[in-house]
Amino acid sequence: MTRLTELPQVKIPAGVIHLGLGQPGNDLLPARSLAQAAERALKDDDASYLAYGQEQGNINFLQTLAAFLSAYYPGPVDPDSLLITNGNSQALDFICRQFTQPGDTVLVEEPSYFLALKIFADHKLNLVTVPMDEHGLCIKDLEKTVKKLSPSFLYIIPTHHNPAGVTLNRERRDALAAICKKHDLPVVADEVYHFLTFEKEKPIPMGCFSDQGPVISLGSFSKILAPGLRLGWVQAAPGLIKKMTRAGVMISGGGFNPFTSQVVDAYIQQGLLDTNITSLNKIFHRRMKTMCKALKESMPPGVRYTVPDGGYFVWVELPGHINAEKLRKKSQDRGVDFLSGNLFSHKGHLKNFIRLGFCFYDEAMIKQGVKRLSEMLFQY
Amino acid sequence: MTRLTELPQVKIPAGVIHLGLGQPGNDLLPARSLAQAAERALKDDDASYLAYGQEQGNINFLQTLAAFLSAYYPGPVDPDSLLITNGNSQALDFICRQFTQPGDTVLVEEPSYFLALKIFADHKLNLVTVPMDEHGLCIKDLEKTVKKLSPSFLYIIPTHHNPAGVTLNRERRDALAAICKKHDLPVVADEVYHFLTFEKEKPIPMGCFSDQGPVISLGSFSKILAPGLRLGWVQAAPGLIKKMTRAGVMISGGGFNPFTSQVVDAYIQQGLLDTNITSLNKIFHRRMKTMCKALKESMPPGVRYTVPDGGYFVWVELPGHINAEKLRKKSQDRGVDFLSGNLFSHKGHLKNFIRLGFCFYDEAMIKQGVKRLSEMLFQY
Repeated sequence: MTRLTELPQVKIPAGVIHLGLGQPGNDLLPARSLAQAAERALKDDDASYLAYGQEQGNINFLQTLAAFLSAYYPGPVDPDSLLITNGNSQALDFICRQFTQPGDTVLVEEPSYFLALKIFADHKLNLVTVPMDEHGLCIKDLEKTVKKLSPSFLYIIPTHHNPAGVTLNRERRDALAAICKKHDLPVVADEVYHFLTFEKEKPIPMGCFSDQGPVISLGSFSKILAPGLRLGWVQAAPGLIKKMTRAGVMISGGGFNPFTSQVVDAYIQQGLLDTNITSLNKIFHRRMKTMCKALKESMPPGVRYTVPDGGYFVWVELPGHINAEKLRKKSQDRGVDFLSGNLFSHKGHLKNFIRLGFCFYDEAMIKQGVKRLSEMLFQY
Repeated sequence: MTRLTELPQVKIPAGVIHLGLGQPGNDLLPARSLAQAAERALKDDDASYLAYGQEQGNINFLQTLAAFLSAYYPGPVDPDSLLITNGNSQALDFICRQFTQPGDTVLVEEPSYFLALKIFADHKLNLVTVPMDEHGLCIKDLEKTVKKLSPSFLYIIPTHHNPAGVTLNRERRDALAAICKKHDLPVVADEVYHFLTFEKEKPIPMGCFSDQGPVISLGSFSKILAPGLRLGWVQAAPGLIKKMTRAGVMISGGGFNPFTSQVVDAYIQQGLLDTNITSLNKIFHRRMKTMCKALKESMPPGVRYTVPDGGYFVWVELPGHINAEKLRKKSQDRGVDFLSGNLFSHKGHLKNFIRLGFCFYDEAMIKQGVKRLSEMLFQY
């Protein structure tokens, strides 16, 4: 395994442990096995991955991906229900252009993924919050809200929520699918952490509800393989997928990433992705337990958090009088960083929350980071 | 070299020669040398190309690309003036989102690249035509139009125009840069054919005017290496590049294509891109001469065309009474296909024009295709 000396996107000052990061640790990027897969993939006699690709994705890769998903999901996945993307950020951006106009209303959870909120803001969408609890999105008043506001879509992170760490339960998934169908409400489900369940049985992905209504499930190789690939997929009803492929950008440029698809195709077919997911889940589970144990042992009274079943994050609620943004500025000088809760609310609420990630650092660093954080909090 | 049996995006019926295609021939996709470059690239000790990449593009690749461009362009290219994209279609789409709102006016040439027109239509832009002649875009009344309409940008294909085959002359490039500066008019210059000049000296790319005003030059590896890579670049003033990197989709997903950039970085550094461009120019030059000779020898009176200095296309004007779209339907049954002129006009004008490409087929097929076309026209 290769270690990175620094991250291209984030400058972390020397000595600082940045517990806010939401990407696989440098030691977890499988450079060697990807190179092996690439070697095999690029010897293929059929070099169609170098031509303009089919808009939906090249057919071999669609079949490989469908087979991979079918093995993890409770039912078979139809290749015609898939569209290859440049990862979930690009997919979200693409969906905003396809399904919205500036000024349209979009429903979001609170908290929600902070950079999805930024993408929606770039599209000048009007965001309306739907509350969450420990079982995920609250369905209770959703139908009323949908009737009243006719939103363009609802954006949710159903499994191992970023940042809340919670998972939408089965009952609510069924209820949501029913509302989606009844009101023809597109539900954009960001299922990027779906494969990262530690012990319990995985929930039924929202993608499996896409034959019932306009559910648009977003999947990605960023969290289970490598973000730099910029490769992901949409799962939706074949008719909806067909509609997406009619965008000018797709007809003009062809499929979004044929070359990288060819490499990841070989990676999946060699069984390397299964191995990687199993390995990541073991590592992340240990790191999560280490983080939660450290929190339990060191945090001052009044600090609460949810122990997640998977994913990347622990969402921590500090006592109400603490402003996490202000705490953060002081923490950076004391060698620890995190993301403050207000980022995850489009109205800047959740000021006393912080997002911690256990995906990037090893256990010793996580312990050290939590220790520094607890010292800060005791002094605050 | 590997031959494709069929194209992922286009279904060509058996026996049909599709002279309308705008992509490198299957025999020209350098699968073997790209595989060599990939092998070297993916052994790199620094695996940062697998992490979320810097928004602008990973620094090593920006430097390699800047050095490559500097060798071909009349002056040095600053890495800070570059942004790595997923190719020109995605770049155009990205620019529309950054610089326009639905209903905004955008100026386009007539004819223009037909799928750029589709991308603009997807963004619900109001297209206004600027005429062209044999020296490219007519500058004469441009300033008046700009003052009157305050367009969001002007989209042009300055070099080896698709489909017109003409190149904007130096005098008009200077004049255009001056108007761009004076009126703060973004000029989006699609320079995808810039490197494919056959004999004459290359024109000064519009990218080199980007220090004078808001010129946004789009470059791509699709036409000089392989479309399936989905890799290209924007060249613009560093301040404008900075602005683009602040989009939510970029902060969230990082750079648009770090993994493929790493492979193409090695490809360029090994000198393989220079070799490929030299080779393509020789091949395309011969094919173009073969096509124009065949047109000269076989076309009925009243058919006119411009002999291009480079690029992919010959733009053919048929006698005014011929409707190319109707001709096309009959031609398909007779084993030859092309694109009809009305596609290249957002108003559906140019009905008696056709676009022929000499990029995809070898010389024997080009001769055969033109022969079939001329037989059709004599019978029409």
